[in-house]
Amino acid sequence: MVTEHTNSQQHLVSGWVEEFRPFSKNGQCANYIPALAEKNPLQLAISIVGPSNNEMKAGDTTELFTLQSVSKVVTFILACMDRGLPYVLERVDVEPTGDTFNSIIRLESHRPGKPFNPMINAGAITVSSMLSGISPQEKIEKILYFLEQMVGKKLKVNEEVFQSEWQTANRNRSLAYYLMDSGFLDCPVEEALEVYLKQCAIEVNVSDLAMIGLVIANDGYHPQLKTQLFPKQVAKLAKALMVTCGMYNASGKFSAFIGLPAKSGVSGAILAAVPSHASLNSPFPDGCGIGIYGPAIDSIGNSVAGVKLLKHLATEWDMNIF
Amino acid sequence: MVTEHTNSQQHLVSGWVEEFRPFSKNGQCANYIPALAEKNPLQLAISIVGPSNNEMKAGDTTELFTLQSVSKVVTFILACMDRGLPYVLERVDVEPTGDTFNSIIRLESHRPGKPFNPMINAGAITVSSMLSGISPQEKIEKILYFLEQMVGKKLKVNEEVFQSEWQTANRNRSLAYYLMDSGFLDCPVEEALEVYLKQCAIEVNVSDLAMIGLVIANDGYHPQLKTQLFPKQVAKLAKALMVTCGMYNASGKFSAFIGLPAKSGVSGAILAAVPSHASLNSPFPDGCGIGIYGPAIDSIGNSVAGVKLLKHLATEWDMNIF
Amino acid sequence: MVTEHTNSQQHLVSGWVEEFRPFSKNGQCANYIPALAEKNPLQLAISIVGPSNNEMKAGDTTELFTLQSVSKVVTFILACMDRGLPYVLERVDVEPTGDTFNSIIRLESHRPGKPFNPMINAGAITVSSMLSGISPQEKIEKILYFLEQMVGKKLKVNEEVFQSEWQTANRNRSLAYYLMDSGFLDCPVEEALEVYLKQCAIEVNVSDLAMIGLVIANDGYHPQLKTQLFPKQVAKLAKALMVTCGMYNASGKFSAFIGLPAKSGVSGAILAAVPSHASLNSPFPDGCGIGIYGPAIDSIGNSVAGVKLLKHLATEWDMNIF
Amino acid sequence: MVTEHTNSQQHLVSGWVEEFRPFSKNGQCANYIPALAEKNPLQLAISIVGPSNNEMKAGDTTELFTLQSVSKVVTFILACMDRGLPYVLERVDVEPTGDTFNSIIRLESHRPGKPFNPMINAGAITVSSMLSGISPQEKIEKILYFLEQMVGKKLKVNEEVFQSEWQTANRNRSLAYYLMDSGFLDCPVEEALEVYLKQCAIEVNVSDLAMIGLVIANDGYHPQLKTQLFPKQVAKLAKALMVTCGMYNASGKFSAFIGLPAKSGVSGAILAAVPSHASLNSPFPDGCGIGIYGPAIDSIGNSVAGVKLLKHLATEWDMNIF
Repeated sequence: MVTEHTNSQQHLVSGWVEEFRPFSKNGQCANYIPALAEKNPLQLAISIVGPSNNEMKAGDTTELFTLQSVSKVVTFILACMDRGLPYVLERVDVEPTGDTFNSIIRLESHRPGKPFNPMINAGAITVSSMLSGISPQEKIEKILYFLEQMVGKKLKVNEEVFQSEWQTANRNRSLAYYLMDSGFLDCPVEEALEVYLKQCAIEVNVSDLAMIGLVIANDGYHPQLKTQLFPKQVAKLAKALMVTCGMYNASGKFSAFIGLPAKSGVSGAILAAVPSHASLNSPFPDGCGIGIYGPAIDSIGNSVAGVKLLKHLATEWDMNIF
Repeated sequence: MVTEHTNSQQHLVSGWVEEFRPFSKNGQCANYIPALAEKNPLQLAISIVGPSNNEMKAGDTTELFTLQSVSKVVTFILACMDRGLPYVLERVDVEPTGDTFNSIIRLESHRPGKPFNPMINAGAITVSSMLSGISPQEKIEKILYFLEQMVGKKLKVNEEVFQSEWQTANRNRSLAYYLMDSGFLDCPVEEALEVYLKQCAIEVNVSDLAMIGLVIANDGYHPQLKTQLFPKQVAKLAKALMVTCGMYNASGKFSAFIGLPAKSGVSGAILAAVPSHASLNSPFPDGCGIGIYGPAIDSIGNSVAGVKLLKHLATEWDMNIF
Repeated sequence: MVTEHTNSQQHLVSGWVEEFRPFSKNGQCANYIPALAEKNPLQLAISIVGPSNNEMKAGDTTELFTLQSVSKVVTFILACMDRGLPYVLERVDVEPTGDTFNSIIRLESHRPGKPFNPMINAGAITVSSMLSGISPQEKIEKILYFLEQMVGKKLKVNEEVFQSEWQTANRNRSLAYYLMDSGFLDCPVEEALEVYLKQCAIEVNVSDLAMIGLVIANDGYHPQLKTQLFPKQVAKLAKALMVTCGMYNASGKFSAFIGLPAKSGVSGAILAAVPSHASLNSPFPDGCGIGIYGPAIDSIGNSVAGVKLLKHLATEWDMNIF
Repeated sequence: MVTEHTNSQQHLVSGWVEEFRPFSKNGQCANYIPALAEKNPLQLAISIVGPSNNEMKAGDTTELFTLQSVSKVVTFILACMDRGLPYVLERVDVEPTGDTFNSIIRLESHRPGKPFNPMINAGAITVSSMLSGISPQEKIEKILYFLEQMVGKKLKVNEEVFQSEWQTANRNRSLAYYLMDSGFLDCPVEEALEVYLKQCAIEVNVSDLAMIGLVIANDGYHPQLKTQLFPKQVAKLAKALMVTCGMYNASGKFSAFIGLPAKSGVSGAILAAVPSHASLNSPFPDGCGIGIYGPAIDSIGNSVAGVKLLKHLATEWDMNIF
């Protein structure tokens, strides 16, 4: 029964991918990061993974892409484990801003210049600077190890993408030096940036993304490993941040019309974490993680086709936290 | 069994009210609204109402207070019913801002000056201007009738509070004239302000507040009336807005650490809407509405003791949408 | 000799008016004030008046137009005489902003919300509110009497323009209510606005404007009346404000490339005050006042042809305070 | 006759230095630059130099100090000579801002992020990046050579001050990377910063400062060398900038109450350029340059005693451009 049901659902999901793929034409690949600009804008892929290792996937599922801003959720969780919540919250707030992800204005206009949340670049750079480790390499290894626990395989940094971003990271350098000046950076600027830009360049496919989402959805508990990878409180906090700030300055509309904790990246990645209680009537009644990839993004930075696909899925399957 | 359980829980709730009442000393009654400044800052009350008409309440539950910003949720829902979602969303966005509730900056700094969300004053005034009706009185009657359906009794405007706010509404007038100038007001300024300030002055007790919360929690369906008072989609949207923008510029922290859709007012009111799926392990497994009153507010505008009480309750009862 | 010289210069000035008149096509009449939108955009006129009653004029010199923002200099001087400099400076600063004339942002972003200077609308409304008088009419009479002393004839308010602006003054009302809220308004909002909008609607021709400029250039001393109409210190202060803030957010460029104290209005009026020491080599070696009218304005609010004409004149005649 | 007059004036000037020296107590040495923090806050010195090599000086006139922001005027003039005015003005505007000297907000809030003027740090860094030269050293040599022509002796960079600022230049680095990102930097960030911070660390005494002021006052013409060192138009522009933006965000008040083109530095330096036509009744009727040093600065960055001394001098000697 379950299998049949799943098969028919799988069929539907495959159809939805093709239905929403053409919407990519309303967006374009991030052009300010050379290595991203060359991607095929019409690609679209999705993976949905439940706790009993059940997965549905469709579209360009073997395609590799970089985490970009999706990594911000991962390092935030890691920093909370590493330093403890009070230490982290002293250096980064958890308030949404309504501003673009690379905005610098609030660092000056609000005293004492504490970044507003870990999902905008300023806050994410601060978070990366907090990770323990004596070198950027050690910090990156720590991130990769944490991801390995979640996705079940060793991921790696796409050096070409990293180099591409490193060369053109002037705006992020500006943010980082500002943070350093106001005391909200925990290590030298170039170290923090190296960690930050390398974490952004970690390569995954949609199934990996879905696995990360599943552990977050599951309050930090890994259902296959049967291990609590991070505290429930941190997982709840991460999901709250994904809802209030996860989809750049369209987070409000995403919450209002889709209603799931999600985090996007300018690579076209979207990670969603669907707790069991928010998907009781879906084919994944025990919750799931969702990974989506569609490199054509809108002016705000979210995958055009990816958001449409996720909205359709959430509506059809009645997945909503509200 | 249920009753005994409830009784012991009721006892706990009463204890928590007394435990958190002293925190009021860390806040003070809103002093810029003369009629609110005279309230007893040490008052604290809570009501929790479930769909089977089961209520727990404790503290100063007979005390009457005004809705203030809590009314913003009500009029937003009403405007959506009245005008349809597209009409409303053309005139007010649903993005959080990180700014104070009475901020005017974004109306100038972001083109075309559309207010960012209906939970800040600018957006709420726009919403009030959209309500259909040929006079402020007719619009207020419509709001009161809508509330009557939810709480089961006729509420009324506290004229003294209204007059008090009307006389000192310079900042709100400034916002309203700005909105009028940029085309985001649907009726004359003075009419919109009269509606807005009268809705803020509607008087309730914590049980009334809890009933409103219950209907919102219940996706617009009134469990006693067995009627769908407003569409499910509007209810979900309202809850999303409460999470991203409901607790002024502490909404992010509230979502992060409490995790419930809620809306506060400077009168010290807090309305929370707890969907059933977010309270599966609580004494209210079918969901509930929560009304809290504690007039001593913090610098951001939220009831000091009220927030602490709600946080404790949510933690103890494992109520959380994330 | 002087007469011949003057005649040849007069001839030149007439030629310049025709030379620069076509530049009006690069601008347009202020369209947000209905009564201004109907003006003939190709009109251009200039009057230059020296202390010995010598005047050169050319172009549409009989055309009447309203003072608009040029009135801000006049009421600032009057308020200083009326209330004394310390009183005035406690309520309005004298710093340039780089912002548009009707900007509201700084009233919120800078504590305590004191308007930055009397040449932007916020500051000018505060100044108008400070004028003594028991009614708007009395205050306007005071302004008209002060102007009469300078120009030698009774001026009057163009009621049509006033009514036109009064009906559409939403942005100015927004500014005024904001100022009232933060304590920087000295009389009720509607009174301050009536005075402000009526002073803006006072009608003059270019010769009148030049006479006002002459008295300011002359440090407050009226050369024909042989009377000190206002203190030298106030005149210096007014000229400094005209240089730092007089030409809206093009004041810096105007000072840099023209180098004369000047104030413009959206009616296309420009008033310049040329002290004797800044015009030693010009046909007006004892200084002069300049009035220009060219209703086609640029996006910033300055007369397109008027600025070009004034720049040419200042360059040719070597008039520059720097 | 002249000598006697001068002697009595000299006597007066010496008295004024002692009269205003105690006001230093209302300020303090810039504490964010370690090498400046150690200065004796009670020092005060002035030099006034006229075109016939006549100098009056008083106070701690042998004290050496660094130019800091005063250097911004010098490099702006040099860049205009080097690149031509159109090239320079394409990269930096000439509008005052009302913001603090190190503000970054406008680079984001105003498109396309062109710095508002060359007297704030953002604009000054852009200017330094424009200087021709294949290395920072070559650019600095060019600045030193230009200064040598004006002051008649080879100046040098205080390496200790430079190193001190270089180590702590996070805010300036933030500005520079932002400018690089938006295309308003003409050379690599570290090069531009090295030039900028070295020009800030050039060491002078008050007589040197007065000589620079004299050449600017004199429209670029060096009276002793009898050479036009830079074009008159550039000199006028520099003086206009000093008036609208020279004294940080107190420039408006300085112009209003002192009325002279001046530029200050956080070292406590003030440079004033008094054109002959603005000092007709002073002991320097052919104009003069003024150099002042008083290291105790106010919160805005201007020498407390220095401003008071200059105001007194300007008032007593009737020096004012307005």
